[in-house]
Amino acid sequence: MRDAEATRRRVLDAATAEFAARGIAGARVDRIAAAARSNKAQMYAYFGSKEGLFDAVLTLHLGRILDAAPLTADDLPGYAVRIYDAHLANPGFVRLAGWARLERTGTGELFEDAEGHAAKTAAIAEAQEHGLIDPSLTPEDVLQTVIALAMTWSPISATYTASAAEPDDVHEHRRQLLRRLVARLVTAPDASS
Amino acid sequence: MRDAEATRRRVLDAATAEFAARGIAGARVDRIAAAARSNKAQMYAYFGSKEGLFDAVLTLHLGRILDAAPLTADDLPGYAVRIYDAHLANPGFVRLAGWARLERTGTGELFEDAEGHAAKTAAIAEAQEHGLIDPSLTPEDVLQTVIALAMTWSPISATYTASAAEPDDVHEHRRQLLRRLVARLVTAPDASS
Repeated sequence: MRDAEATRRRVLDAATAEFAARGIAGARVDRIAAAARSNKAQMYAYFGSKEGLFDAVLTLHLGRILDAAPLTADDLPGYAVRIYDAHLANPGFVRLAGWARLERTGTGELFEDAEGHAAKTAAIAEAQEHGLIDPSLTPEDVLQTVIALAMTWSPISATYTASAAEPDDVHEHRRQLLRRLVARLVTAPDASS
Repeated sequence: MRDAEATRRRVLDAATAEFAARGIAGARVDRIAAAARSNKAQMYAYFGSKEGLFDAVLTLHLGRILDAAPLTADDLPGYAVRIYDAHLANPGFVRLAGWARLERTGTGELFEDAEGHAAKTAAIAEAQEHGLIDPSLTPEDVLQTVIALAMTWSPISATYTASAAEPDDVHEHRRQLLRRLVARLVTAPDASS
């Protein structure tokens, strides 16, 4: 049993590297099997198919990002900074999400997580009732735009993608900027007066 | 000559569809040739290589987006709305940019257009001098975050991707939202008092 679990982990690690680099169509299952010291038969027994393996990898990393950057509706600037840092530490996740968008889910919601989504919009609605977020925005609008802003320098940025190799002061500049801009975004202009 | 130009256009159209759908590695040059009623030899004579053809397609659509949504530093909310509408009308461009990011340019600037970039940051700096944009932000920060916000529902959105098939009132809601939020973003909170 311990061996099976160890193999499963090795497959997920190897599949993460392969899918993040090459996407779904470009990934080679036999390359993953070789890197994980597994074989195709064993991998298909665990994950069903290449698509099933991709789903397992995407879900694994989505969970890691949600753990690293949980929604804090009473502190959206802090939430945005945690998203920035989580993606900097785990750029593979946004790459996986990018491949999923380009190869699979062209329009609509990228992640089908109805329960998690409802919990997030409810938390934002509650923060709006407590006067912490502009109540004229929908919770959906708040969530989507704050995430978009936090992902300004993400691995799928259309302008500039950050890297962990950049100097600390560059990252710190972006964190401070995110704090200020997210606070502006979710606060009605006349709320400060 | 007119025939050559017509063939070149057919190749670019066919290549746009193929690259937007499948990316660089996934695109098949013979499928593009067949769709364009051309052949590989002719295509390589025009574009040099598959990469060269991708570059030509990306440059073509970048030009179209820049024409449809020119930077108006004195009206950044309007700029953001035009970016939203341009991507809705031409979702292929953001898909091409997404493939370029995932398959080619992992970090740093996605588009190397030093001249265009310098003109944009200069225009923003001028608007800052005229009191139209918070002078405590760098022109770079303004450009990157406004574009990120305008691309909240883009074809590489990690949350929700818009589609032209959605009802008009949904698009109008997002346009109005962008106007308000971009205005907040680039205005210092105490500037309105």
